[in-house]
Amino acid sequence: MTAANLDHTHDPAAPSWVESANGHLDFPIQNLPFGVFQERIPAGLTGGEARGGTRIGDEILDLRALSRSGLLTGTALAAARAAAEPRLNELFNLGAGPRKALRIKLFQLLSADDGDREKLSSMLVPVRNAVVRLPMEIGDYTDFYVGINHAITVGTLFRPDNPLLPNYKWVPIGYHGRASSVHVSGDDFHRPHGQLTVPDNPAPSYQPCRSLDFELELGVWIGPGNQAGQPILIENAADHIAGYCLLNDWSARDIQSWESQPLGPFLSKSFHTTVSAWVITPEALAPFRAAMSRPIGDPDPLPYLDCADDQQAGGLDVQLEVLLATAAMRAAGVAPHRLSLSSTRHMYWSTAQLVAHHTSAGCDLRPGDLFGSGTLSGPTVDAYGSLLEISSGGRDVVRLPSGETRTYVQDGDEITLRARAERSGAASIGFGECRAVVLPAVVLGKTPSPDS
Amino acid sequence: MTAANLDHTHDPAAPSWVESANGHLDFPIQNLPFGVFQERIPAGLTGGEARGGTRIGDEILDLRALSRSGLLTGTALAAARAAAEPRLNELFNLGAGPRKALRIKLFQLLSADDGDREKLSSMLVPVRNAVVRLPMEIGDYTDFYVGINHAITVGTLFRPDNPLLPNYKWVPIGYHGRASSVHVSGDDFHRPHGQLTVPDNPAPSYQPCRSLDFELELGVWIGPGNQAGQPILIENAADHIAGYCLLNDWSARDIQSWESQPLGPFLSKSFHTTVSAWVITPEALAPFRAAMSRPIGDPDPLPYLDCADDQQAGGLDVQLEVLLATAAMRAAGVAPHRLSLSSTRHMYWSTAQLVAHHTSAGCDLRPGDLFGSGTLSGPTVDAYGSLLEISSGGRDVVRLPSGETRTYVQDGDEITLRARAERSGAASIGFGECRAVVLPAVVLGKTPSPDS
Repeated sequence: MTAANLDHTHDPAAPSWVESANGHLDFPIQNLPFGVFQERIPAGLTGGEARGGTRIGDEILDLRALSRSGLLTGTALAAARAAAEPRLNELFNLGAGPRKALRIKLFQLLSADDGDREKLSSMLVPVRNAVVRLPMEIGDYTDFYVGINHAITVGTLFRPDNPLLPNYKWVPIGYHGRASSVHVSGDDFHRPHGQLTVPDNPAPSYQPCRSLDFELELGVWIGPGNQAGQPILIENAADHIAGYCLLNDWSARDIQSWESQPLGPFLSKSFHTTVSAWVITPEALAPFRAAMSRPIGDPDPLPYLDCADDQQAGGLDVQLEVLLATAAMRAAGVAPHRLSLSSTRHMYWSTAQLVAHHTSAGCDLRPGDLFGSGTLSGPTVDAYGSLLEISSGGRDVVRLPSGETRTYVQDGDEITLRARAERSGAASIGFGECRAVVLPAVVLGKTPSPDS
Repeated sequence: MTAANLDHTHDPAAPSWVESANGHLDFPIQNLPFGVFQERIPAGLTGGEARGGTRIGDEILDLRALSRSGLLTGTALAAARAAAEPRLNELFNLGAGPRKALRIKLFQLLSADDGDREKLSSMLVPVRNAVVRLPMEIGDYTDFYVGINHAITVGTLFRPDNPLLPNYKWVPIGYHGRASSVHVSGDDFHRPHGQLTVPDNPAPSYQPCRSLDFELELGVWIGPGNQAGQPILIENAADHIAGYCLLNDWSARDIQSWESQPLGPFLSKSFHTTVSAWVITPEALAPFRAAMSRPIGDPDPLPYLDCADDQQAGGLDVQLEVLLATAAMRAAGVAPHRLSLSSTRHMYWSTAQLVAHHTSAGCDLRPGDLFGSGTLSGPTVDAYGSLLEISSGGRDVVRLPSGETRTYVQDGDEITLRARAERSGAASIGFGECRAVVLPAVVLGKTPSPDS
């Protein structure tokens, strides 16, 4: 994806007749992300099936209605029909061609000079009347560890003399995550219980997590997959990416530290994972590509991970932000407190390299698979992507404007991730929010047997 | 599951009018496992959709045909209708009641004294005319590590003084695996490439795996799931298990040792995982339950993993076997060589404990999820469940009757896992085979872009 991929849909001066889109922080006409939504239906009424939509300003354009409107033909129509489904796996399985054709048509229809405004207006659903859903049926979820500052900062907590392990600059480190526990932004969850140890007691106990944390990550949605046993070459890898989202890899640090040897994190990261609702396409992010830059002295990527185009423009330049609003702050109407301002520039490996590496032993990807980047921390405390880092493992207290303090996330806290792509000469776009509130741990008791 | 769960379907004297079932090593009438099959259709003809079946001797009873035959009513009919689908997720989502009702009806219909033999005979498909398919759509696959002898033997290779880590006897150790790369028995695969290091060169390279291994595991299929955030209590956990299979967790040891720090195995175990085709139900295994036995001095399970019924009868007493047939042996008609004879008795945690632990932080299980037990080695070399153990990390050579030698799996080798449940007073049953041949590594070259 290079400057050659810029076209009229990236024109920063282009307005939309959907007025809330013009100057919209996240969703101007240059973005046009895809997602799944349902209308809120008043109690007692029926309807409101989940279906695909495009976010434009404070509205969602109903792609099922559009696919039936007669306004589309050819490839764009085929893509809109796939997007009429309750999951977008088939839309993204179609690949870049249909996805781009639909983008170009949507841009035309939503542009200020289009003549079909009246017809299209009836297909708009105000965001306040809609509920977003998980956009994909996730076959598999993989979490990587390519935020090098996070790896160094966390490594320093545990191995001060040797923070980065010998494989880090050779292997895009990752592990398999849990697909069932990925939820869309806005789904709250209860503090997890787990087996953990507490100071002065060598025997573990089963109790609510005491050190609940967030992790600021970029999510990658996979489009077309590969055949089992057939690695995807780095030259083709970007074509398998359908789009991007924000991802909060909620982590229970005390459960994690007790369970993770020797096979890695398990229940400490599979109770709840939050993703933002809108799939930000590679087309929308074309103006915000960046070169990958390895510090001098680092090894070159091995040939199966090395490609000139990817090294020159395979990175992303997107600002990332973590906001905390405690229950008291929300009740008092206090604005959320920014815990961190970071960037996707802190990825040591490109998203194309993740695709090439993941398939390099023959593992098959399928449309709708999800990758997390790993925590994308900057090098300083104001850019750290987790409380583990910000509080130095729970030792340092964060003071909030409300007078409250935090080391880890408390019940009632709302964590919101945001992303913003800004560059001179381009229209700024965002990802929308990736948000959840932590509810108190459930009271455990008898649950009914599935047999009874 | 105790002796109270034994009924007339376990009568070891019960014959079937399907003559190949009587005395069948794996599939007498007392077994009645469920699976998915397609008929082999000669080239040029159509038909043969995937659907559920019950294995009986050398035949498969077509459950779709049975569901349409008028021979079933009520709960058994509902279960057979669910089993008519190309995946069995919905059958097992129905839980133990419908699954048992169908078993009891199948036992009656296939018993020697049944009057519907002619009608039923038309629904039998000879195994030689059928291809088995993966029985479930796997939402998530989790691999545990509960074979304590394997943990000790492998731990000793890397940490001679301290083979078992401090958490082992408290936590059923597990990690998330890859669902997309689980394949049914009979699907062969190519030796994986991967990033690995070789002696005398500190820099890694990307090349075909040099130390390909099998792992002998019990597979567990999940039936009814749980709501996100709601742990399954140990008392109810067994009710969430739909059945069992054999699982070969193929492992690339050189890729594994290089990639696994700090987050655990990733591509070294996600290129191909083999499961046996037939789901052996808890009902079929009722005569083969065993007490869990912890060595004196080991800690008691924490309360969320402790339940008297499970401690008394939550274990399984099933013999496990690993067979190797090299290409030369198969060409010469030489019988496969037994590499290992082990048992499910070597599990430190019961399958119900795995269910309770997996959901203990709120992770939701879904029907069709798959667990692997981890490698189930016995304490001696003739019972080791991997070549890593048998060859002491590649140092000791295994001599085969053909005159060939092995340290790890070579191209052309066929590895077959088998299982057999035998007890005095019960009809012996088996699991069928879990088999794959390792093909040479693919020649990597340009693969087409999904866009082209």
